Amino acid sequence: MRKSIATVSVSGTLTEKLEAIAAAGFDGVEIFESDLLVCPLPPEEIRARAADLGLTIDLYQPFRDFESVPDDVLTRNLRRAEHKFRLMERLGADLLLVCSNVSPGAIGDDDLAAGQLRLLAERAAEHGIRIAYEALAWGRHVNEYLHAWRLVRLAGHPGLGVCLDSFHILSRGSDPIGIEAIPGEKIFFLQLADAPRLAMDVLQWSRHHRCFPGQGTFDVAGVAEHALNAGYAGPLSLEVFNDHFRQADARRTARDGMRSLIALESTLEHGGPARPIVPTGFAFAELAGTGELGGMLTALGFARTGRHPTKPVELWEQGGARLLLNATGGEPALIAIGLDSPDPAGAVEHAESLLSPVLPRRRGPGEARLDAIAAPDGTQIFFCDDSWLSDFAPDGRAGGEITGIDHVALAQPRHYFDEAELFYRTVLGLSPQPGLELPDPYGLLRSKAMSSPGGGVRMVVNIAQVGAEGVPWQHVALACRDVLAVARRLRAEHPGLLLPIPGNYYDDLEARHDADPELRRLGVLYDRDEDGGEFLHLYTVTVGRVFFELVQRIGGYDGYGAVNAPIRLAVRHSGGG
Amino acid sequence: MRKSIATVSVSGTLTEKLEAIAAAGFDGVEIFESDLLVCPLPPEEIRARAADLGLTIDLYQPFRDFESVPDDVLTRNLRRAEHKFRLMERLGADLLLVCSNVSPGAIGDDDLAAGQLRLLAERAAEHGIRIAYEALAWGRHVNEYLHAWRLVRLAGHPGLGVCLDSFHILSRGSDPIGIEAIPGEKIFFLQLADAPRLAMDVLQWSRHHRCFPGQGTFDVAGVAEHALNAGYAGPLSLEVFNDHFRQADARRTARDGMRSLIALESTLEHGGPARPIVPTGFAFAELAGTGELGGMLTALGFARTGRHPTKPVELWEQGGARLLLNATGGEPALIAIGLDSPDPAGAVEHAESLLSPVLPRRRGPGEARLDAIAAPDGTQIFFCDDSWLSDFAPDGRAGGEITGIDHVALAQPRHYFDEAELFYRTVLGLSPQPGLELPDPYGLLRSKAMSSPGGGVRMVVNIAQVGAEGVPWQHVALACRDVLAVARRLRAEHPGLLLPIPGNYYDDLEARHDADPELRRLGVLYDRDEDGGEFLHLYTVTVGRVFFELVQRIGGYDGYGAVNAPIRLAVRHSGGG
Repeated sequence: MRKSIATVSVSGTLTEKLEAIAAAGFDGVEIFESDLLVCPLPPEEIRARAADLGLTIDLYQPFRDFESVPDDVLTRNLRRAEHKFRLMERLGADLLLVCSNVSPGAIGDDDLAAGQLRLLAERAAEHGIRIAYEALAWGRHVNEYLHAWRLVRLAGHPGLGVCLDSFHILSRGSDPIGIEAIPGEKIFFLQLADAPRLAMDVLQWSRHHRCFPGQGTFDVAGVAEHALNAGYAGPLSLEVFNDHFRQADARRTARDGMRSLIALESTLEHGGPARPIVPTGFAFAELAGTGELGGMLTALGFARTGRHPTKPVELWEQGGARLLLNATGGEPALIAIGLDSPDPAGAVEHAESLLSPVLPRRRGPGEARLDAIAAPDGTQIFFCDDSWLSDFAPDGRAGGEITGIDHVALAQPRHYFDEAELFYRTVLGLSPQPGLELPDPYGLLRSKAMSSPGGGVRMVVNIAQVGAEGVPWQHVALACRDVLAVARRLRAEHPGLLLPIPGNYYDDLEARHDADPELRRLGVLYDRDEDGGEFLHLYTVTVGRVFFELVQRIGGYDGYGAVNAPIRLAVRHSGGG
Repeated sequence: MRKSIATVSVSGTLTEKLEAIAAAGFDGVEIFESDLLVCPLPPEEIRARAADLGLTIDLYQPFRDFESVPDDVLTRNLRRAEHKFRLMERLGADLLLVCSNVSPGAIGDDDLAAGQLRLLAERAAEHGIRIAYEALAWGRHVNEYLHAWRLVRLAGHPGLGVCLDSFHILSRGSDPIGIEAIPGEKIFFLQLADAPRLAMDVLQWSRHHRCFPGQGTFDVAGVAEHALNAGYAGPLSLEVFNDHFRQADARRTARDGMRSLIALESTLEHGGPARPIVPTGFAFAELAGTGELGGMLTALGFARTGRHPTKPVELWEQGGARLLLNATGGEPALIAIGLDSPDPAGAVEHAESLLSPVLPRRRGPGEARLDAIAAPDGTQIFFCDDSWLSDFAPDGRAGGEITGIDHVALAQPRHYFDEAELFYRTVLGLSPQPGLELPDPYGLLRSKAMSSPGGGVRMVVNIAQVGAEGVPWQHVALACRDVLAVARRLRAEHPGLLLPIPGNYYDDLEARHDADPELRRLGVLYDRDEDGGEFLHLYTVTVGRVFFELVQRIGGYDGYGAVNAPIRLAVRHSGGG
């Protein structure tokens, strides 16, 4: 299907917006009036610019407060419309979006409204222009899409149809199945936007918190499916008002929007969610840095069990946990994640189809092939079968208290948080948990956990900046059989390695639970879920950007100890690690 | 009255918070539990630190979900309470805030709730601790302050009283007059917070958008007044949850909070709003920079009419508009505003009482005294009588098309927008208009206009950053008798001086109004209010950080042409000035 996007959805001047939209591979645009008004180019040049970029102008919008008005206002509104028709001729746009009237002076009379819409359609037709009428969720009298359709049918003009917008439909809780009552040829346009579920005024919700399909909680694909079932044949068009998108890089936002439409189209084609090739577990985590990190790994019980034949990369193992230390240089940081994949080549192909950058990878003779993409924060993600390990010729000394990688936490740049969720959801097939806002001493930290079915792969994405402060920390959480045993050994042998936990935390823990006094002695954090599942965890100090967490899940605990995250954030700011 | 603040209201570690709060002159604090839990200091040391800083610990909070519970939960909750009582003994706090239960399992039975609260008060009394019970606006059964008082009276224990919070009372629309039904000695604590009027879920509203009294739309002073009428003798305590405050400088936020309490106290003492010495007009605007700015002023019709005897400052005049050019150096920028004041010394004294920094000012022999303070963005504000002008010995050549300074627009640092409103409201006595969000190509720009009675002084504050982009522009708007005449002359003589306005703007203007075609030819912007008042304005290009606007108000127009601001923002980003 053709894919469009409203210019208001990305940042920049109109020229920058068009370039970003074209670069992301869209077929067309909706020109948002406020973008045009501030543009120094005349409409003819905007038209030529779009054409040069291979973009059609699918819609001009919005035309407001037209219908359901007294005669004198109608005269003024028709005059206003004539001006816009002439503008659209210059622009080469032949479809005008008319939003239902929101003014207090609007008259609640369907016959009046339909008659005036018909008149508008007649005038528009003289310019070869058609009218798409949309029910705004906060329209004065018309705020349900079926009401808009009733007026369009009543008006009975071939140049008048409806515009459907998933936000306006779903934010009001309307059932989109009624879309199938509308003949496809009378659905002139379909706008798609998702949104998180927020209990707030719908106008503010719409103006500030829309997001791309798959980034919120609405069933946007369901709306599109009903429109297709009705016979809609126009473009899928994104129309998103979002405070972060307004501030973000236009090319990155446009690409993210395109990713959302590709995923949505795939959902429509397969009659269900797009099916990525879901990774089953962590093959490895790769860290830049050697000396200090090597020391920490040794203290944690890891052994260096192999070396790459041609690259300055060492394999460190303990139980099922495999870490690579890469001596290429730079600040100690997590630089790559290896995921066990049932079909590495297919996984890369799927990621590429969703516009993820595929990374070039040099391979020595006889070395394993490794397929990699870049995650939104720049971390490399490798899709692995068993062959990668043979490169390192491990020596088999891999026993220990740690059994594997439980989860990996990455820092996501500001304004790109929604992007991360869409990426992990569509490219890796992870399921997001509800987002959290965690109090850091210098602001609220947004955090979201995502996991594969069964929990083999768990990722946490944190926002990388709070206020003026960077919180760029990444961490690798290692699963342990017995965290208390590990903590006992570490406190005895390497007391400086672990993040100190305030005694006040344990006073509170003991007020809430019958907490084992050893938790306090060992500096181990504790959480319990509603079903009695338990989580024991502790943190190392930070090396460069990275630290380790040691975790133990008991009784089906499926969280990440988020209740304790503020402790970690504050202690780290206090210079405690 | 004693003044307190909850530690959650400012950013930082608990130690940083206490230092900032003490530096702002508060008498006491409410220790917020989450700040204590993450603090590495034991309670005894926190107590000592507060004492060293001269702060009393007036309250410990919150204790949640205690009352209206089944017996087994009560047992656990009492155990939890005992832990907190012991903590409070170590901390030296003798008042515990108990919030009304929000859990779905709470039982709606007043007798049960009152009985359990009595039991809690009895246990607390054994530790010398009293309980302040508060109705959260989103409490499960108890969410009105009079309901909380009913339970407290029913419980009948001397160690149990209510805590009143202006946000919880006013956000629900409850009438605070009922406070006077509560005996003053049973009001154990009074928390004050303001908020903008937002149509959203009250919990989210409370957690993210509270602000200091005078920064929102609530009648916070009214709540305090009723409490004082009832006989309340405890502290006025600020408890604000605000996403910006969490990220802002703690000392600055604390000082701003103190300013709000001083202003509120003054309102209470005078039985009405605090009465600053309101300036009546602009005496001058002072700009750093000479050559390029001087050229622009000459082009605008200003003449250099005087020089300061000892400083590198020139007086430029036209009609009633006086600008000072200061050659001290630095990027061309607006550095000071002179305001006509009926009592300059009194105005500075008032500003100082509200914690505004008073600026030292050297004065030559025989020179006029100038009293100045610093505005929140650092701009100097001088309070002037007529004598300042004599320093410059103006030559009287001051005729021209421009009649005076209409308004001045300043750029306010991010996170400090609410601070500016409180400053201009309380220190200068200006009345704010509702805030606006204006679309800039790279984000939404917050803007707020404020004016003195009669409009002699008008200030606009814009946020200085949008996204990653700085929009640090300041401007001086000059009132003209006939903007079109000025524009005609400037377009003819200095065509490069004026900001180019896109033709698309005029296409739209002509669609909306019978616009004079000369507006387009001259690049003059236009607005019309609902009463037919008109506003004609145009902008110069920017020199350094500063530009000029030429404005003409017709028929009582009282706005600032905000509808046209997005044009200016976009053109400036497009390199058009």
